[in-house]
Amino acid sequence: MPSRFELANAIRALSMDAVQKANSGHPGAPMGMADIAEVLWNDFLVHNPADPHWPDRDRFVLSNGHGSMLLYSLLHLSGYELGLEQLQNFRQLHAKTAGHPEYGYAPGIETTTGPLGQGLANAVGMAIAERTLAAQFNRPGHTIVDHHTYCFVGDGCLMEGISHEVASLAGTQQLGKLIAFYDDNGISIDGEVEGWFTDDTAKRFEAYGWHVVPNVDGHQPDEVKAAIELARQHSDKPSLIICKTVIGFGAPNKQGKESCHGAALGEDEVAAAREQLDWPHAPFHVPEDIYQGWDASEAGRTRQADWQARFERYAEAHPELAREFLRRQKGELPAELTSEALIEQAQDKAETTASRKASLACLNELGPQLPELLGGSADLAPSNLTVWNGAKVIGPEGSREGAPDGNYLHYGVREFGMAAIANGIALHGGFVPYTATFLIFMEYMRNAVRMAALMGVRSIYVFTHDSIGLGEDGPTHQPVEQLTTLRSTPNMSTWRPCDAVETAAAWNAALKRQSGPTALVLSRQNLPHQARDKQQLADIQRGGYILKDSDGTPELILIATGSEVGLAMDAATALADKGRRVRVVSMPATDVFDAQDAEYRQRVLPAEIGNRLVIEAGHPDLWYKYVGLEGRVIGMTTFGESAPAGDLFKHFGFTVDNVVDEAEQMLDDAED
Amino acid sequence: MPSRFELANAIRALSMDAVQKANSGHPGAPMGMADIAEVLWNDFLVHNPADPHWPDRDRFVLSNGHGSMLLYSLLHLSGYELGLEQLQNFRQLHAKTAGHPEYGYAPGIETTTGPLGQGLANAVGMAIAERTLAAQFNRPGHTIVDHHTYCFVGDGCLMEGISHEVASLAGTQQLGKLIAFYDDNGISIDGEVEGWFTDDTAKRFEAYGWHVVPNVDGHQPDEVKAAIELARQHSDKPSLIICKTVIGFGAPNKQGKESCHGAALGEDEVAAAREQLDWPHAPFHVPEDIYQGWDASEAGRTRQADWQARFERYAEAHPELAREFLRRQKGELPAELTSEALIEQAQDKAETTASRKASLACLNELGPQLPELLGGSADLAPSNLTVWNGAKVIGPEGSREGAPDGNYLHYGVREFGMAAIANGIALHGGFVPYTATFLIFMEYMRNAVRMAALMGVRSIYVFTHDSIGLGEDGPTHQPVEQLTTLRSTPNMSTWRPCDAVETAAAWNAALKRQSGPTALVLSRQNLPHQARDKQQLADIQRGGYILKDSDGTPELILIATGSEVGLAMDAATALADKGRRVRVVSMPATDVFDAQDAEYRQRVLPAEIGNRLVIEAGHPDLWYKYVGLEGRVIGMTTFGESAPAGDLFKHFGFTVDNVVDEAEQMLDDAED
Repeated sequence: MPSRFELANAIRALSMDAVQKANSGHPGAPMGMADIAEVLWNDFLVHNPADPHWPDRDRFVLSNGHGSMLLYSLLHLSGYELGLEQLQNFRQLHAKTAGHPEYGYAPGIETTTGPLGQGLANAVGMAIAERTLAAQFNRPGHTIVDHHTYCFVGDGCLMEGISHEVASLAGTQQLGKLIAFYDDNGISIDGEVEGWFTDDTAKRFEAYGWHVVPNVDGHQPDEVKAAIELARQHSDKPSLIICKTVIGFGAPNKQGKESCHGAALGEDEVAAAREQLDWPHAPFHVPEDIYQGWDASEAGRTRQADWQARFERYAEAHPELAREFLRRQKGELPAELTSEALIEQAQDKAETTASRKASLACLNELGPQLPELLGGSADLAPSNLTVWNGAKVIGPEGSREGAPDGNYLHYGVREFGMAAIANGIALHGGFVPYTATFLIFMEYMRNAVRMAALMGVRSIYVFTHDSIGLGEDGPTHQPVEQLTTLRSTPNMSTWRPCDAVETAAAWNAALKRQSGPTALVLSRQNLPHQARDKQQLADIQRGGYILKDSDGTPELILIATGSEVGLAMDAATALADKGRRVRVVSMPATDVFDAQDAEYRQRVLPAEIGNRLVIEAGHPDLWYKYVGLEGRVIGMTTFGESAPAGDLFKHFGFTVDNVVDEAEQMLDDAED
Repeated sequence: MPSRFELANAIRALSMDAVQKANSGHPGAPMGMADIAEVLWNDFLVHNPADPHWPDRDRFVLSNGHGSMLLYSLLHLSGYELGLEQLQNFRQLHAKTAGHPEYGYAPGIETTTGPLGQGLANAVGMAIAERTLAAQFNRPGHTIVDHHTYCFVGDGCLMEGISHEVASLAGTQQLGKLIAFYDDNGISIDGEVEGWFTDDTAKRFEAYGWHVVPNVDGHQPDEVKAAIELARQHSDKPSLIICKTVIGFGAPNKQGKESCHGAALGEDEVAAAREQLDWPHAPFHVPEDIYQGWDASEAGRTRQADWQARFERYAEAHPELAREFLRRQKGELPAELTSEALIEQAQDKAETTASRKASLACLNELGPQLPELLGGSADLAPSNLTVWNGAKVIGPEGSREGAPDGNYLHYGVREFGMAAIANGIALHGGFVPYTATFLIFMEYMRNAVRMAALMGVRSIYVFTHDSIGLGEDGPTHQPVEQLTTLRSTPNMSTWRPCDAVETAAAWNAALKRQSGPTALVLSRQNLPHQARDKQQLADIQRGGYILKDSDGTPELILIATGSEVGLAMDAATALADKGRRVRVVSMPATDVFDAQDAEYRQRVLPAEIGNRLVIEAGHPDLWYKYVGLEGRVIGMTTFGESAPAGDLFKHFGFTVDNVVDEAEQMLDDAED
């Protein structure tokens, strides 16, 4: 039977070998955290390598994702379908073993990590999802959701602001099944952290209401084991286990130094480490007894079989709940969801309303049908209008306002944390998170939004106050370039609806989009209802469509989105009065329009009509993709100002007169 | 002589009246913090309303910027040039009294605040600037820099992650002259914060190494005064004074509730508050004795005159230092700066090198000439290459590695904090900050970058690892849409140089740009040197120029930036070999090119040449502005992958063959 040290050395050897072979990567963290990981995975982690999707598995998140070889080694050694050849292909094109753990690449990767701090946030989201799902589904005598979330974090994660946001919320939420391990190695890329990071981290986390196990020697398995046991006993507080470790442990000349953080050790140092660790085996060779010591297949099979048996008893006692549980695990929407019918209903109602209010109406209609919705706002609920009639606040057992089986989180003023927590909630499964803030503060959460797109996670963003139309709060609060950022993010779908009807269509699209996130970009101010025939109504879901056409071939196309569609319609009428043949295209979702077939796009924007004028209260430049060098865009090339919305639209040229002027100039130019 | 309470009530009355008149704004914070502000401004703040630019004034930052009427009231009452008519025009177009305090709008606004948490970060930057400037310029017997930085923060600021980043760094840096006041009113927009914010904030800040004065009654001037005195005694730690306050204090029916946070109180409640506060005066009327109680003009004049006399003695003793101090205060570069000569030198050297390395070479050359440079990186110094030969680490007196008179900050893994601190450093005056991270992590600091652009602050960003060219770290680390975000930010200048020569030109432009920030977008990998004649060399500073032209009128223009310029040149050669007439335009700075006269732009990109192909390893869509509907862009429409850079460029089509194919297709299409 190999010793714990030998088992851990398998991680160290595979990690340094893989980094060496790639001549690229981070050996320091895997070698430093190998002993902690060995104890956690071999003595505590409940998982089944044969089924990485088993719903009640423990979640493991490597927030310091640059230590990816630690995770790949663990997955490989414990029996996941991740062969040695993958480890040998570390960081090569098409390998499952990317430089940082990429969700969907190798089995057992719970989330993509690398951008520091976000893994911890994902873990907080997973722990919230676990507790909420348990409260919603477990029944007396039937526990089908009951697992832990473990997370490794480094100095970098703890310096990042997001660690504050999510640790603070995790404390308030008393997430007792969340256990984080701090790899306290005193080293970051610039060197010894004492020059820039002197927090008393134990005290800091205690201030958040965490249970802290300080001063654990991360290379003493017994100490690590005792700490984990202690942490698991604290069921009303998340735990932080602070492990003192030596970065690059085992590399005799580089350990404890930043030089082993982010580069291959070098052949000589790898050889010296082999000696130091008493690991005489060839590169990538792991002796059979070591594999056996790691193999979690049998235990995993048994655990999952136990759970399956329990689930079957549950299904007998609570057949509807069981069906619902399975549906939600699969991420399927209820068959009878009325989200599509809502679009037609909105058309019939013909309401003039703010699109944020129309969004709330959608939530009020769909919320009761979608118990998987888990909403929230970063302390802007009364402005974002995200608290629907059936919203029930999530809080720890016994809290004044909330309960564990709720469906709405008060995230506090924590945009970045919110979006990354939502990623964790979505990744956990069983939920469709929606989160909200002002569109401008998308920037605070920006990289988590990108991570949702990168991972292909269904996370819905309610971004209200979407332009200078927010008025008096002024330029700090008025988006200009944010739509451009969203629209140029791969795999992001972005809707800016022009009325209640398009808002319903946007919600419908967002819910049905399983392959990635959707941003709903909504107005503070009222937007007029637009008339549509049946075909136009259907065409909304094509992202762009003819909202009003001219008699005869148009000589000009006005393209607009959101609050500027009403203006475009008025301008088109004014131009028609002057004898101009004008088409109006409403383009709520450019990405969806771009995905339509060429025939449809040509029908809406015929190549032969070069006179195209876009109106959007956002940055203009991206729109030249649709109007070309001959076209024009009425947009925002500067920051906004503080004033009532009406004054601002006038000030910045969003008036019928200005649109008509620009249009006529263009037509005159074209006729010259 | 009016009482302190009466003095504070002037703030309350002006604030509620202005919000009421605008029917928009935030009365709660000004009314809640009025007593604290009264003590601070009347008993401690060293400033001169007649000269808001006096270098040695105390800095006051309202991080909870929605409470702008607090600041406007203070400025008005204490004698700044901010008349009553401005307060009556609160939140109206062209008023100096915007919804949130906007830098440059009213005298005495030290920074634009509103996006929560960033004001605290700005304050940390100002305190760093003060200490560094003092250490660089004060001499025995001559203290010309010696002032405090005061900052008001709300619950929202303290929930934001950035508060962690900057408070942690402020603690490590032992910024004893930074004093923050926490408006602990227990209310945020969603309601009572206990549901989402239960930090022990005193303990948290102690964990950062701050001196905390807890449990101060923010409505008891004596307590506030004693707390400030205590804080000022602690010269080796920043201080946090935790003031318990009642939001909307004085509004009998709304105080202590979220309803008074962000909306006018209503006529009735304003009237009731007048009664409650015993403030019988008409709206916007402040009795003369209250004005006198507030007037800081005389004291300010005296203080500044004292300082001026001291400065003159200093100038006699240290004439060169004094001249240098004045130059740096004005933000003027040294007359003999060689940044322009560097461009020519780089052309002569003809080096093939990574642009990040070329950037370091610029720093090594210019650093000694520019003591105002205050550099730093978010723990990526060895990758960003920001530590130049003369870099001296900033740290508190007696620290192991640093010293107060340094010029380089180890920011730690705190991108957002870094950028917002840099804003504070620039706003303080005397410094030109440059900060660095990977381009992708611009997203973590994104809104502070936007704030620099909005305020027109000279802050230089060194963004390295600018594309899939970073290789193995994979999609989480590979920028795609980030250039688009930067380029569509108003008042942001963005350079992506193609070789060492353009890198020198970019540094030159960044340093000379006084009206806003500049992003230097640099490669990890080597870039080939490009040949240029004198005119081409000069034209770099026009943002885009003809790097290679065809014999005769070109039939195709290749446009490229950064690492893709070399590829464009190779492709042009290959196309020329096939008899094609190809022009190559290098376009390092689209914003600079856009600002050129039409004649120049037409010369570079003649309207009559429609065959245009852009090559850039970033998101393509913004480029249609330059190539129109007929043009093509070879860019990144998906996220990247993890692999060696060479493999990635091939995988994503950045090869001579692919460029030639695309070019020939386009030419064939055009000929059809």
